[in-house]
Amino acid sequence: MADPQRIAIVGLGLIGGSLALALRRSLAGVRIVGADADPRAIEQALEGGAVDVGGSVEDAALEACDLVVLCTPAQPLLEMLPEIAGRMARGAVLTDVCGAKERVCEAGAKQDRVVFVGAHPMAGTEYRGFAAADPALFAGATIAVCPPVGAADERARREAGTRVRSLWMAAGAEKVLDVDPAKHDRAVTFASHLPYLAAASIVESLLSAGDAAALARDLAAGGFRDTTRLAGDGTVGGAAALNRFIPSEARALAQRLRALADEIEQDPNAALDRLGNLADERRRMRLPTVSTRVRPARSP
Amino acid sequence: MADPQRIAIVGLGLIGGSLALALRRSLAGVRIVGADADPRAIEQALEGGAVDVGGSVEDAALEACDLVVLCTPAQPLLEMLPEIAGRMARGAVLTDVCGAKERVCEAGAKQDRVVFVGAHPMAGTEYRGFAAADPALFAGATIAVCPPVGAADERARREAGTRVRSLWMAAGAEKVLDVDPAKHDRAVTFASHLPYLAAASIVESLLSAGDAAALARDLAAGGFRDTTRLAGDGTVGGAAALNRFIPSEARALAQRLRALADEIEQDPNAALDRLGNLADERRRMRLPTVSTRVRPARSP
Repeated sequence: MADPQRIAIVGLGLIGGSLALALRRSLAGVRIVGADADPRAIEQALEGGAVDVGGSVEDAALEACDLVVLCTPAQPLLEMLPEIAGRMARGAVLTDVCGAKERVCEAGAKQDRVVFVGAHPMAGTEYRGFAAADPALFAGATIAVCPPVGAADERARREAGTRVRSLWMAAGAEKVLDVDPAKHDRAVTFASHLPYLAAASIVESLLSAGDAAALARDLAAGGFRDTTRLAGDGTVGGAAALNRFIPSEARALAQRLRALADEIEQDPNAALDRLGNLADERRRMRLPTVSTRVRPARSP
Repeated sequence: MADPQRIAIVGLGLIGGSLALALRRSLAGVRIVGADADPRAIEQALEGGAVDVGGSVEDAALEACDLVVLCTPAQPLLEMLPEIAGRMARGAVLTDVCGAKERVCEAGAKQDRVVFVGAHPMAGTEYRGFAAADPALFAGATIAVCPPVGAADERARREAGTRVRSLWMAAGAEKVLDVDPAKHDRAVTFASHLPYLAAASIVESLLSAGDAAALARDLAAGGFRDTTRLAGDGTVGGAAALNRFIPSEARALAQRLRALADEIEQDPNAALDRLGNLADERRRMRLPTVSTRVRPARSP
């Protein structure tokens, strides 16, 4: 195994860039190899001191790293995983940040060169690219971590899981949750992917509203801003598209909306009772309200 | 006309309570009559110094007030409007805060005793009741104000419009927008009511998710919190139910969601292009991100 402080981050956007900046601050002596298809991202990451060396994914010295983190959008991440694993040192640790875990972990399990540990940091903003990267992005965040797969050695797997947990704690995370990939995907369907698709659909409605759109923007109070903020994070869509629960649950959500519209027309009092109950339930969730990061610390 | 500084606020919840507290601070010598069906709200408003006298709506001395503000939920507001107008001094000003303006302004135009000026402050939180009232709730807010209707005197109408604008500026608003009631309702369909109904439907999906619900809450990052925050504000539902554009637009939104689900299944790349474009459009809106008040200043 190579120097234990040698980490490669493939994809230097918001998540990869933020991870590099966070690790740089907390891991003394860490050497970070950055890779991205966009030369500008590499330049910014080098200038920002986030990575020690940077270049294309093809040229990255992955064989010299004991830990590689895939931080690209979902579809390319799934596609490059086997090839990346094939270029790594035998027994090294490969991990990722994709918001859909079932298919990514399946791909990780299909090779036995490295241990693959699927992970998903529950953090993000609607900004993207290294310009929006922030060393505090993961501060207080929850990270979902899936069981190690791939290389068969039981001890190597266990160590790989510990290594990935330590990585995220070093990046500022507050909590690591061990999750089964399918259970993760079904849960993020409700926690993230459906809210995202609804937000995108509302933006689409607004864009098709003609004259009403300008006034709607003037009248948009916090509700619209909050509800559609997520729609600005295009990377969630890639994960949603890999999530096998999405098509049926998005159709079920559409059906709920349609039923609500019908009820408002036919029995408004019943609709209001239903909405009042849902409001009570939502308030009972007592979700924290302050940790969302809505402005990048390093915006241009 | 009675003392020009005598204002009645009917409904001492989040909006009425916040308005009373804000006016108390900015209008020297104002006398505020508070009315609410809930004796506890009256007690809290009296204790908090928000109102000078308080009691039931039936007992309120509306005839002695030159300005009455209806701040109850939408359906009772619409129902009580004619009776309230009938109890007021001839030529006085009646206004409201309902999030649907077309039907409320129609009701206001059906009487000629007072001038009715429909208004809608674009502010709120998911908390409710006087306990959540905050004198700064309207700080920086936009207020939609509709053309004065009712009492036919042209000069009285003009003065009533000015009076309502002044009221909201005194309460801390940043901007008053003159809007036609139907145009208002169509715009808030996109700005507020559809986001609200989508948020409520997502909460409903989560509640029906069985085992996945607990994990979904643990994994809920800012996206879920923000997207569903609006669902906690049950009062928006009342306004949405009075908005004639809602049933058809909610069905159209459901259809967009369904189409997106189908596309993710059949042509994921096309779906991702579409979502990427929507993300770009959402970011281009450059909505302010900091003025939302998510915590009540006076929570219990």
